[in-house]
Amino acid sequence: MNIGLDMMGGDFAPLEAVKGLRLYLSDHSAPANLFLFGDEQVLKPLLKEQGIPENHITIVHASQVIGMHEHPTKALKDKPGSSISLGFKALATGVIDAFISAGNTGAMMIGALYSIKAMEGVLRPTISTIIPKENGHAGLLLDVGLNADCKPENLSQFAVLGSLYAKHILDIENPRVGLLNLGEEEGKGNILAQATYPLLRDNSAINFIGNIEGRDILVDKADVMVCEGFTGNVVLKMAESMYEITHRKNIRHEYLDRFNFENYGGTPVLGVAKPVIIGHGISQETAFKNMVVLAAKIIQTDLMEKMKKSFMI
Amino acid sequence: MNIGLDMMGGDFAPLEAVKGLRLYLSDHSAPANLFLFGDEQVLKPLLKEQGIPENHITIVHASQVIGMHEHPTKALKDKPGSSISLGFKALATGVIDAFISAGNTGAMMIGALYSIKAMEGVLRPTISTIIPKENGHAGLLLDVGLNADCKPENLSQFAVLGSLYAKHILDIENPRVGLLNLGEEEGKGNILAQATYPLLRDNSAINFIGNIEGRDILVDKADVMVCEGFTGNVVLKMAESMYEITHRKNIRHEYLDRFNFENYGGTPVLGVAKPVIIGHGISQETAFKNMVVLAAKIIQTDLMEKMKKSFMI
Repeated sequence: MNIGLDMMGGDFAPLEAVKGLRLYLSDHSAPANLFLFGDEQVLKPLLKEQGIPENHITIVHASQVIGMHEHPTKALKDKPGSSISLGFKALATGVIDAFISAGNTGAMMIGALYSIKAMEGVLRPTISTIIPKENGHAGLLLDVGLNADCKPENLSQFAVLGSLYAKHILDIENPRVGLLNLGEEEGKGNILAQATYPLLRDNSAINFIGNIEGRDILVDKADVMVCEGFTGNVVLKMAESMYEITHRKNIRHEYLDRFNFENYGGTPVLGVAKPVIIGHGISQETAFKNMVVLAAKIIQTDLMEKMKKSFMI
Repeated sequence: MNIGLDMMGGDFAPLEAVKGLRLYLSDHSAPANLFLFGDEQVLKPLLKEQGIPENHITIVHASQVIGMHEHPTKALKDKPGSSISLGFKALATGVIDAFISAGNTGAMMIGALYSIKAMEGVLRPTISTIIPKENGHAGLLLDVGLNADCKPENLSQFAVLGSLYAKHILDIENPRVGLLNLGEEEGKGNILAQATYPLLRDNSAINFIGNIEGRDILVDKADVMVCEGFTGNVVLKMAESMYEITHRKNIRHEYLDRFNFENYGGTPVLGVAKPVIIGHGISQETAFKNMVVLAAKIIQTDLMEKMKKSFMI
């Protein structure tokens, strides 16, 4: 199992990426082979300094870096020697089995969509977030921003992708799918939600429980919560800021800590043919470690093949 | 100044409505004249029991009640003698200057839209919610559910209505208007947000500051936050549930207390020709008192005339 990690991506790279690696390696007696994409001159002394053993590690030198605020499409075109471009190349050619970066989110999404491409039958890949539930469980909300406008068919596919992810990665048996809406009753909603309801109801690949409301997001009603990326993005960012505000105000509680999205590592792009994990720009060592763990679990559970199968007719 | 109050609406009516009246009257030496819509046989002993003085009070007997879960349109048609129907009749004929109810939300909205009607020039009336900001200020989010699907012109009008409400009721000078979106840069967003941006930018009646994201909702970046009712409804209900969860988990803090929407009374329907205030079903005495105070302020500041003027060409 070969996992690629962009060492130059994120606000605290490369130091926190290296520390994350150390954490991962100290936790695992049989770790994955790690391919590190970045500036060799910077990485080598840093790996030594942090006491990272040389076995399991391959450095792939990248002479360029895509900055956090560069225009994604332009940057990918102009910087073929960047850590993100080389990572996607290695993923596309099969040198690595998964690629992780906490760098430029737009570049990661475009790289996933254009150099790896959607699975056959998947109209639009999607990104999700873990939602900590009041009772200690975890739910999955998707889409959280890759698809600002959606068609009912997109949401129906997100439900399938999210269900497989919830089952195999979050270990939720027969995950309950809820359609995020502004009322519980069938027939409620905007045009999109009204048109999506019958598709979810009639989709035999999922366990649809009906509409859920904003008040249900944080309670344990549905495991997989489906919406278009506009609303999902607002919900995710509001939850993140709620955590930051309570933190700044020194309001501490185990439940609030679970909104520290660092704990969840990154979010995989679901519906592309190979595992791509996008980390938060503010990722620190725990997030980097958790992204490697997540990538390994996606490979071990053969999630991509299970997803591909579910879209074959 | 004559304010009408539905005494039969809400989960805790009529007792909490009566208690709210008592609070209001004890706070105000020169109160409004209060018109109470409800069952005379029930109200009279209750008013006496709670020690409500008879001056300033007029009971309008209503022989029927619209239940919280009745179908709004059907209920309004079938129950002309209900407290909500009689309240709207009194508002339409000028007997009262404002009407308040914590009863069936759908019936209140339909009553507002069809028996009072939109102001001339207003395409779609809207409902809003107060958002408590991290620094102690209050913001206004709209629409929060009356308009699940919107056109750019609707959002532009919501910005005007919200700005006038923020200025005259929330006492915010030159309120900053933000367009809720999934990125900050111009050009970001779904089709609706992209098409709304130039309308807000070119609207000289508002102080537009650009796009805001989910992370900005709870911080003091924009005073008036505009979105379609689908996303706004999800945000409002999620904020309400966040309060409920922290309350259940006994996480206490002054900031979290400000998410107790009871403190804000109800929400006015903005853009209809006369003041209509819709309370939460779970309204208790403080909420009822605050709704009467809000109605009085809307009348005193002549908000309706200011709104009407802003839509005259």
